[in-house]
Amino acid sequence: MIKIPVAILGSTGYTGAELIRLIENHPVFEVAHLGAHSQAGKMAGEVMPGCAGKIADMRLAAADAELPEDVALVFTALPHGAAANSVKKALDAGKKVVDLSADFRHQSHDTYRAAYGVEHPHPELFSEAVYGLTEFSRQQVASGRLIANPGCYPTSSLLPLAPLVKTGLLDTSSIIIDAKSGASGAGRSANVGLLYCELNESVKAYGLPRHRHAWEMEEWALGFGGEPVKVRFVPHILPMNRGMLTTLHLSGQDTGSWHGVLQETFANEPFVRVLPAGVLPSTAGVSGSNRCDIGIAVLGEHEAVIVSCIDNLLKGASGQAIQNANLMFGLDETMGLSMHALWP
Amino acid sequence: MIKIPVAILGSTGYTGAELIRLIENHPVFEVAHLGAHSQAGKMAGEVMPGCAGKIADMRLAAADAELPEDVALVFTALPHGAAANSVKKALDAGKKVVDLSADFRHQSHDTYRAAYGVEHPHPELFSEAVYGLTEFSRQQVASGRLIANPGCYPTSSLLPLAPLVKTGLLDTSSIIIDAKSGASGAGRSANVGLLYCELNESVKAYGLPRHRHAWEMEEWALGFGGEPVKVRFVPHILPMNRGMLTTLHLSGQDTGSWHGVLQETFANEPFVRVLPAGVLPSTAGVSGSNRCDIGIAVLGEHEAVIVSCIDNLLKGASGQAIQNANLMFGLDETMGLSMHALWP
Amino acid sequence: MIKIPVAILGSTGYTGAELIRLIENHPVFEVAHLGAHSQAGKMAGEVMPGCAGKIADMRLAAADAELPEDVALVFTALPHGAAANSVKKALDAGKKVVDLSADFRHQSHDTYRAAYGVEHPHPELFSEAVYGLTEFSRQQVASGRLIANPGCYPTSSLLPLAPLVKTGLLDTSSIIIDAKSGASGAGRSANVGLLYCELNESVKAYGLPRHRHAWEMEEWALGFGGEPVKVRFVPHILPMNRGMLTTLHLSGQDTGSWHGVLQETFANEPFVRVLPAGVLPSTAGVSGSNRCDIGIAVLGEHEAVIVSCIDNLLKGASGQAIQNANLMFGLDETMGLSMHALWP
Amino acid sequence: MIKIPVAILGSTGYTGAELIRLIENHPVFEVAHLGAHSQAGKMAGEVMPGCAGKIADMRLAAADAELPEDVALVFTALPHGAAANSVKKALDAGKKVVDLSADFRHQSHDTYRAAYGVEHPHPELFSEAVYGLTEFSRQQVASGRLIANPGCYPTSSLLPLAPLVKTGLLDTSSIIIDAKSGASGAGRSANVGLLYCELNESVKAYGLPRHRHAWEMEEWALGFGGEPVKVRFVPHILPMNRGMLTTLHLSGQDTGSWHGVLQETFANEPFVRVLPAGVLPSTAGVSGSNRCDIGIAVLGEHEAVIVSCIDNLLKGASGQAIQNANLMFGLDETMGLSMHALWP
Repeated sequence: MIKIPVAILGSTGYTGAELIRLIENHPVFEVAHLGAHSQAGKMAGEVMPGCAGKIADMRLAAADAELPEDVALVFTALPHGAAANSVKKALDAGKKVVDLSADFRHQSHDTYRAAYGVEHPHPELFSEAVYGLTEFSRQQVASGRLIANPGCYPTSSLLPLAPLVKTGLLDTSSIIIDAKSGASGAGRSANVGLLYCELNESVKAYGLPRHRHAWEMEEWALGFGGEPVKVRFVPHILPMNRGMLTTLHLSGQDTGSWHGVLQETFANEPFVRVLPAGVLPSTAGVSGSNRCDIGIAVLGEHEAVIVSCIDNLLKGASGQAIQNANLMFGLDETMGLSMHALWP
Repeated sequence: MIKIPVAILGSTGYTGAELIRLIENHPVFEVAHLGAHSQAGKMAGEVMPGCAGKIADMRLAAADAELPEDVALVFTALPHGAAANSVKKALDAGKKVVDLSADFRHQSHDTYRAAYGVEHPHPELFSEAVYGLTEFSRQQVASGRLIANPGCYPTSSLLPLAPLVKTGLLDTSSIIIDAKSGASGAGRSANVGLLYCELNESVKAYGLPRHRHAWEMEEWALGFGGEPVKVRFVPHILPMNRGMLTTLHLSGQDTGSWHGVLQETFANEPFVRVLPAGVLPSTAGVSGSNRCDIGIAVLGEHEAVIVSCIDNLLKGASGQAIQNANLMFGLDETMGLSMHALWP
Repeated sequence: MIKIPVAILGSTGYTGAELIRLIENHPVFEVAHLGAHSQAGKMAGEVMPGCAGKIADMRLAAADAELPEDVALVFTALPHGAAANSVKKALDAGKKVVDLSADFRHQSHDTYRAAYGVEHPHPELFSEAVYGLTEFSRQQVASGRLIANPGCYPTSSLLPLAPLVKTGLLDTSSIIIDAKSGASGAGRSANVGLLYCELNESVKAYGLPRHRHAWEMEEWALGFGGEPVKVRFVPHILPMNRGMLTTLHLSGQDTGSWHGVLQETFANEPFVRVLPAGVLPSTAGVSGSNRCDIGIAVLGEHEAVIVSCIDNLLKGASGQAIQNANLMFGLDETMGLSMHALWP
Repeated sequence: MIKIPVAILGSTGYTGAELIRLIENHPVFEVAHLGAHSQAGKMAGEVMPGCAGKIADMRLAAADAELPEDVALVFTALPHGAAANSVKKALDAGKKVVDLSADFRHQSHDTYRAAYGVEHPHPELFSEAVYGLTEFSRQQVASGRLIANPGCYPTSSLLPLAPLVKTGLLDTSSIIIDAKSGASGAGRSANVGLLYCELNESVKAYGLPRHRHAWEMEEWALGFGGEPVKVRFVPHILPMNRGMLTTLHLSGQDTGSWHGVLQETFANEPFVRVLPAGVLPSTAGVSGSNRCDIGIAVLGEHEAVIVSCIDNLLKGASGQAIQNANLMFGLDETMGLSMHALWP
C-alpha cells in the first residue's frame, strides 16, 4: 500500500508518544518527521521508553525545523499558543493539519480569549478550522485541511450530551459534569505537583472556578445540539496513568427515553458503545482502545446520571486525531485503531 | 493511667484492623478481646500484616464467644444485620457499644428497610441509639450507651452540608453529591471484583440508582439542619487504598457567604479544617489522620462547589469511632487521634 | 484472507482475556469457541470489561463442551493438571494445541512431580511436546502439534541466560535470579491475598524456598545451553498490573564480552532487543508489547548484572502463544503482534 | 513535660515532612524552626499537604537563616555536600545535630570521595560523627553531638547482615543485595523521570554499576561485624510511595542456625522483629511504622535468602533520626515512634 508520510510536532509528550505508537501500527501513515523542543537532537528511543523498532533511532528535529517536502499531514501536539504558529506554517507549506492543541477549537476570538487568557496569533484561520468530534462532524472533517482535535473532557462529555440536547428533553440550564482523569492528561513537564508521590494514593479537584474546557463544551453542545447550554464542570485528577470517567448529573423530561436516544444515535458507530440500560462502564474497559463507553442510570422521571469513559490519550487525543486523519485522506475511519482495551 | 479494656467484634476487616492500630496507640483503651468470623482461632498477626507487638499474638475468638467481664466497651465492625444481634447482646451484658455497621443509623424501621432491604432484628433499640457524627452530636454521644457510627460517605457529606442547610441559603432540592472512595471502603472479602487487577488503573461508579448511604444523608441533613433535603448521590471507587473525596455541587443564595458559615461552624473543631476560600483539599492531606478538610469554590452568586476529604478508615469509620468512645468515657475527644496525615 | 478458527479454553482469566484481545486483532486466527469453568453460560463481555465488539456477545461454553469441528487450534489457559486432560482431548480430535499451563513444559515425569507435587495424567505426551521458547525452538514449534508455552519467569530468565550458558563463560553454579512481577501473574481467583488493598503500596517475596519455575529454568537452561545449571530463584509480586523485571546476578569469565554475545544472538530477532551496554530496561518500555528488553551492567571482570523485561501477559504468556501459533500454521511469526508498548 | 525546641533544615522534602509529622506527635521535641531552600518565605502548610494544625502556619525560613538560640537539636535533611556546611554551623552554635544526608556516614575522606565524587568541606568532623544505626551503636549515639543517620538501603541491609558477618558463618565475598524501594526515596525534585506516569505501572533498576550506598554497606558491615565484606548491590524503584524490601542472597555455613542468630540479636529490640522461620515480610507490614521486619528462607545447608522490610521514610530516614535524637537527649528510645504500620 502506498504510504503517506506524516510529521508530529511536539512528539515527546504523552500525546506525541501515543501518536507515534498508533502511526507505527498504521497501514498507510508513516512517521517521516518528529519535532521536539527541549529534547531536539536526541533519538526518539532515548526519551520515550515505549518507542522501539526503527523509529527509536529517528533523531528529533528542532521545533522550528523545516518539514520534509513529502510530508502530507502534520499533527501538532504543542501547547496552546505555540501550536497556532506551527499550524499556520504547515498550512502555508501545503500540508493538512490535525491540531491537538486548543488553538482552533473555538469559533470566536472572544471565547478563545476568555478561556485561555491570551490573544490568538492567527484568528483568521478560525473560519476554516473543523472541530473534529468525529462522530458529529464527519463530512466537514473529510473535506477539511485544518482539524481542531477536541479536548479530552469535551469529547467524553459531548458524545452523550449533544444528542440529548437535540431532543429538547434535557434541561440545558442544570448540567453538572464531574470528571475524573488519569494523570497523563496533565502532561509531561517537570513539575513537583506531578511527581509520583504527589499524585499517588490521592485525588483532588482542580481548575475551579471554571476550567478552560467548560467553554469548549458549551460552544459545541450548542453547535451540535442546537440549543444554548450551560455547564458546571469540575475535573479531578486520579492516581492512574490513563482513563477518563465523566459523570453527568442531568435533569429533564422523560428520562426513560434517553437510553433509546443514545442507542439510536450511536447504533452504527465503530467507536461508541452504549451499554445496556443500568450498566455503567469503567475506564479499564476502554484504556488502550479508541472507544467511548456510555452508560445511563435513570434516577427518576426527571433525573438521570450518565457515565462516559474514554482513554484520554486515545479517543481523548491521539486516537481521535488518527480517526480524523483517516477521514481527511479518504481512508477507512477505523484504520489502525482496531485494538481492544488493554485489560487488565 | 487506668486502662479501659475494650472488645472488637469483626476485627480482621480493614476497619477492625484500623481500630486495633488506633487502640494500640491509645493511652486509656486497651484491646482485651478480638472476635472474628472465618479467621477465628488464628493469631491476629497472622491475618493482619500491620499488626505487631504483643497484640499480634492475641488469639482471635469466635464471633459468638462470650465477652470478658471486664470489657467496658465493644466496637462492632460487622456486616449490617449481623451487627444488631451482637450489639443487643453486648448491651444486655452491660457494655457500652460503638457500632460501625449501618444497623442503628436510622430512626425508623421503614427507612432501614428501604435502604437495606431487610427486616431489622432489634428495632426497639432505635430510640436510644445516638447517631455519632461527633461534631453535631457531642452531648448525646457523651451520655449514650449505643453509638451508631456514621457511614463514610455521610460523614464527608454532612459535615459541610448540615451547617449550610441550617442557614436556609442552600437549595435543598438540588443537592448533587459525587463521591470518590479508596478501595478499602469496599471491604476485605474474597471477591473477584475487588482484586488488584480489577481495580487498579481504573475508576467506576457504582451503587446506582440509589446507594444506601443516600437515605442516611437525607435523614441526618434533616436531623442536623432542620429542613427536608433531597440528595442525588453517585459514589465511585478509585485505585487507591484510603481516602475519600466528596464533591458537592450546590445551588442556593448568597454563595459568597458560605465560606464564612463553614469557617464559623468549625472554628474550634479539632478535626475539621476549612481551607482558605478557593483552596481545595486532596485526600493525601488527610490520609492517616482523623481530619476532614473542606474547601469551597464559588462559581457564581447561586452556585458553589464544596470539596470534602477524609480518610475513609479514620474519620469515615474507626477514627470517628474512637472519637465517640473518648466522649462516652469522659476522655479528651482527641485522645489517641492526634497523628497528622501520613504523607506522602 | 482465509480465517483459521481457534478455541480458547479457560478464556476468562487474564491470559485468556489477553488471547482474545490478540486474536481479535489477528488477520488470520478467529475466535470460534470460548470455554469457561465457573462463568460458563455468560456472555464474554459480561465477565471481561475489555472485551467489546461482536466477541463480547459470544456465549461462554462449559469447560467440557465439545469443540466445533472446524476449530484447527486450541489454546489451553487452564490450571496445571486440568490442562492435560483438555490437551489430550483436543489432540485426539485432531486439533493442534498451544498449552499455556505448565503441564507439558517438562521432559520427565519425575521433574514434573517434583515441581508440581502431583501425578501427571498423560505423561505419554511428554515426548512430542515442544517447549515453545520461540527464539530457541523455532523449527520444532513449526512442525509441532503440541506446544508447551513457557512460564513467564523462565521466558524472561532464559532468553538472556541460555546464550551465555552456551559460551562456557558463565559460572553455572552461582546463578541468582531475583524477579519482580506485576499482579496479573497471580491470576484471577477470588482470594483475599490478591485483593487490591493487600497488594497495593506493598511488595513481597513468595514461593520460597523453591518456586516451581526454578525446575523449568534449570531444565531448559541445560536444554538450550547444553550445560547443567543451578539457579537460585526468588520471585516478588509488585503493585502493578503487568510487567516483569528479572534481575540476574551472574558471575563468570570475561564479562566484558557478554554484551556482544547477547547482541549477536538476538540481532535479527523481532521481539528481543538488547539495549546498548550499560543501559537498563524498565517494564514500562515493554508493557502491552510482545517484546523482551535486555540490558547488562558489567560490575567487574567476573561479575555482571543482567536485567530482562517482558510483559508477563504477552511475551510471558499469550503473546508468545500467538507467536508459536503463527509458526505452527506457517504464518509470519510477528503476525498480530506488532503493537509497541502502551506507554505510559 | 518540658519541651526541647528543634530545627529542621531542608524541611519541605519527603524526609523533612516526615520529621515534622513525627515531631508534631512527639511528647518532648517541638518544632521551633523550619529551614527551606526554594520554598523559603511560604507557610509550611502551603507546600506540604499533610501538614496541619499550628505548624501549617509556620513560615519557612531561608536555608541560611540564623537558628533560634533555644534550639537544642538540628535535623539536617539536605542534599549531601550542602548538609556538611549547615552541620558545621549548627555544631559551632552549640547545637546537637542529626544529619540525614550522607555527609558524615563515612570514616575516611577517600571513601567519601569514591562514593560521592566530590571533596568534603569538613572532613575534620569525621572522627566525632557517630554512625547512628541505633541498634548497633546505642552507647555512642547517646553521648554523641553529631549523628550520621544511615541511608535507607544500608539500614535495611545491615540490620540482618552485620550479626551474621560477626558469626563467621557467612561467606562475606558473595553477598548479593537486591533492593526495592518506593518512590519517595528518590526525593521531591522537579524531574521528568520522577513524574507519576514515568514511574507508575513500571519497575526499573538504577544506580549501576555501583550505587553510593554500596560503600556505606561495606564500611559498616565491617565496622559492626568485624570482617571485610564485599557486596554486590542492585537497587530498584517501584510504583509505591513508601516501603523498602531488601532481598539478600547469601551463602555460607550452617544456614540452619542463622534464624536463631537473628532472633537472639534482636530479641529485645523494640523496632526489629524477626519473623518465624520461613515467614517472609511485606512492606505493607511496616509502612508508617519505625519497624524493620526480617524473614529468612533457608534454601540449603549453604544458601539462604533474607528479606528485610522497612519504611524508607521512617526506619530508613526520619524515624531512625528521632530514635537517635531520643537517645541523645536521654529520652526513651521509642518516644513518639510507637505507631504500628498504617495498613492497608
